[in-house]
Amino acid sequence: MDAYRTLREEAYEANIEIKRRNLAIYTWGNVSALDPDRAIFAIKPSGLEYDQLQPELMTLVDLDGKIVDGKLKPSSDTKTHQVLYRNFKTIRGITHTHSPYAVAWAQAKKPVPVFGTTHADHCAMEIPCTPFLSPEAVKNDYEPETGNLIVETFRSGNLDASRINIALVAGHGPFTWGESAAESVRHSVILEEICKMALFTVMLDPLASPLPEHITKKHWERKHGKDAYYGQ
Amino acid sequence: MDAYRTLREEAYEANIEIKRRNLAIYTWGNVSALDPDRAIFAIKPSGLEYDQLQPELMTLVDLDGKIVDGKLKPSSDTKTHQVLYRNFKTIRGITHTHSPYAVAWAQAKKPVPVFGTTHADHCAMEIPCTPFLSPEAVKNDYEPETGNLIVETFRSGNLDASRINIALVAGHGPFTWGESAAESVRHSVILEEICKMALFTVMLDPLASPLPEHITKKHWERKHGKDAYYGQ
Amino acid sequence: MDAYRTLREEAYEANIEIKRRNLAIYTWGNVSALDPDRAIFAIKPSGLEYDQLQPELMTLVDLDGKIVDGKLKPSSDTKTHQVLYRNFKTIRGITHTHSPYAVAWAQAKKPVPVFGTTHADHCAMEIPCTPFLSPEAVKNDYEPETGNLIVETFRSGNLDASRINIALVAGHGPFTWGESAAESVRHSVILEEICKMALFTVMLDPLASPLPEHITKKHWERKHGKDAYYGQ
Amino acid sequence: MDAYRTLREEAYEANIEIKRRNLAIYTWGNVSALDPDRAIFAIKPSGLEYDQLQPELMTLVDLDGKIVDGKLKPSSDTKTHQVLYRNFKTIRGITHTHSPYAVAWAQAKKPVPVFGTTHADHCAMEIPCTPFLSPEAVKNDYEPETGNLIVETFRSGNLDASRINIALVAGHGPFTWGESAAESVRHSVILEEICKMALFTVMLDPLASPLPEHITKKHWERKHGKDAYYGQ
Repeated sequence: MDAYRTLREEAYEANIEIKRRNLAIYTWGNVSALDPDRAIFAIKPSGLEYDQLQPELMTLVDLDGKIVDGKLKPSSDTKTHQVLYRNFKTIRGITHTHSPYAVAWAQAKKPVPVFGTTHADHCAMEIPCTPFLSPEAVKNDYEPETGNLIVETFRSGNLDASRINIALVAGHGPFTWGESAAESVRHSVILEEICKMALFTVMLDPLASPLPEHITKKHWERKHGKDAYYGQ
Repeated sequence: MDAYRTLREEAYEANIEIKRRNLAIYTWGNVSALDPDRAIFAIKPSGLEYDQLQPELMTLVDLDGKIVDGKLKPSSDTKTHQVLYRNFKTIRGITHTHSPYAVAWAQAKKPVPVFGTTHADHCAMEIPCTPFLSPEAVKNDYEPETGNLIVETFRSGNLDASRINIALVAGHGPFTWGESAAESVRHSVILEEICKMALFTVMLDPLASPLPEHITKKHWERKHGKDAYYGQ
Repeated sequence: MDAYRTLREEAYEANIEIKRRNLAIYTWGNVSALDPDRAIFAIKPSGLEYDQLQPELMTLVDLDGKIVDGKLKPSSDTKTHQVLYRNFKTIRGITHTHSPYAVAWAQAKKPVPVFGTTHADHCAMEIPCTPFLSPEAVKNDYEPETGNLIVETFRSGNLDASRINIALVAGHGPFTWGESAAESVRHSVILEEICKMALFTVMLDPLASPLPEHITKKHWERKHGKDAYYGQ
Repeated sequence: MDAYRTLREEAYEANIEIKRRNLAIYTWGNVSALDPDRAIFAIKPSGLEYDQLQPELMTLVDLDGKIVDGKLKPSSDTKTHQVLYRNFKTIRGITHTHSPYAVAWAQAKKPVPVFGTTHADHCAMEIPCTPFLSPEAVKNDYEPETGNLIVETFRSGNLDASRINIALVAGHGPFTWGESAAESVRHSVILEEICKMALFTVMLDPLASPLPEHITKKHWERKHGKDAYYGQ
């Protein structure tokens, strides 16, 4: 019997959603699901396509990065996930994709301004973009350093990972997270839509100004504030 | 027996069309259908995805904004719909979406020029875009004030809501209306196509000039004028 | 028995292809098929959606524009088709759509340069764009004057309608033709692809230079010249 | 019995993938599969659509360009394939398409910079673009000269065809290759995605700088270097 069945299924379902939502071709994205009590996460195996996935193929890794169970090597981005789980205490799922509009903003090394309520409904601030990793960091240990770079970008920018659940890594692409694996992949879908709209906006007006703060705040609070009234 | 069965079905069908036509992901759009005799409209419940909808889940609201029937909270945009129904007397359906090309024009805070006959077939004037809501209006009562902003934009611009059935709300997105819920969502589909073509046009020529008035008028009138000859 | 069964089926099949190939939404495109011996063409009825079409609903019109057979009014663009058939003697099918990339070039009032072999494989010259119709022409008789405008653009530019089977009507959109209705709609598909590539090219380099004449000629001739060797 | 059955099936499967992945409409792309021991390759017949293909319809050609077996004329680009096989000794499959984003870069005559890790995961250098073919080369023998142009671009740029498996032919489009026909078409899919992201990046910042060399190298090596650790 598989003691990690539920966790594996959660990770599997969220990975499949990457393909269903056209967030990545071939093997270019991965989702993990954390069990905080056991401090273990299930993650996509490296280099497999979404059609090849099965729940039992998800690899289990602990928060020190050691493989706990699984026949297959975990995603090459596993240590980035590990660092994010260790530093952003409230998160339970992480998604990384190469969705084209989000990648374009990351490649242009630009944070995504809050151009409208679509963005503000999800996040009340611009979507942060890290600087490039230094040669030393790449040489040292690339994947955990990518996680450290995100953490450091949040720390130095005084950003709260429970309110901003997205980071663009410069020249690379998006990482998103959430209270579950499913929520993290949902945030990747929303990010792609926001980045598409923002690109179109900039094409209409390269100097487009962001949404005024009072509207941004209102939209975020009606969905996520203490008196939120969106949804049932 | 459900005395509002027909109205609910009309609203349900039109909401489903949002997904079928890719006008919004997740829960990002809503349609309402008005029964003018009873002064009641059926609207999508807040925060539900389109796959979860059933006709009997549509919420019924009167023109004072009070819930008449329904187990679920209505869309958070309900009071915007209510204000539009009270002010634009001839309309029977309203659609709000976050379709990306229309949102881009709203985020760039630009009215959409009549660049061609595709636009003129539907509307003989540029598609209006409101200014931003003031901090006072947002603080006062956001959703009805969004409706008031649209109404005021039409009033001050001397626009006729029976001839222009679309408004872009700055930094937010489109509201469209029509003689039925189905027609209102159809107008959202047409708007998205017009906004896509207009963006591509501006990319080819940032200073593209609008269609001459005599062609615009001709196209609108062959479809909507008193001697219209389009269709059966 | 329907003496026009084959002609109607040809027109029907080509109209359905508009939807299959995403060249137009709702009712925004029409194809006709000519029987040159009887000097009669079958055309889509006005204002019907593609799902509603049946072969027997195609309307038959002669080259004087009179309805020969059919319960439904023909497309509002019928007289444009009629003028093109009368002037371009070799053509047997005509397609008009509002496909977005082709419309964008028409709205920008720009001929499409031969940027590459994709274009040259189909047409060895830039795709012509008419000027706007004059107020007098619109007032006189809009639809036949649209046909006259295309004919005049070809005449004054010394263009051969058997070698260039596309015209963009300024501020409106594309008309394409061919040796059959099916071929004319195929040319609309190819045009849309060419216009998309040309837009992307201009976005990468607003001053992109066209393909050198010697390559353009080579590509056109290997497909359409007297020693063509493309295909079986 | 067909002594070339396996080779034909390999070519057939890869040609079908062109359509499945939307790399070309109609007949606008072709794949070949090489059997290096027999020095024979199977290639798509000229002018056939993908739905018409069957494994037994693939034409067999030797490395001198002579047809070995097959009822149908091979692709008009056959001699380009032949030249590439003769010069790039390690390759076993070649794909040519007219996918729109890759064509746009070829039409703009620009190499594609390494803007991000999506590109670096596949190729550690910019994607090369040839100059235009000279009038003499076109007159001499167009298709083999296209092959020669690619080979010469690699030779003069000191590029290694086993590390860069893509060439853009100026004003034409992409050729990709690989260790099998399937791999070559996979590289065409990846190229299209890279070109799309690169176009979007340039739209956000026309002066976007490429990925620093240390990150490019790291990404390429974790997937393709001697200590590669991506995949199983």
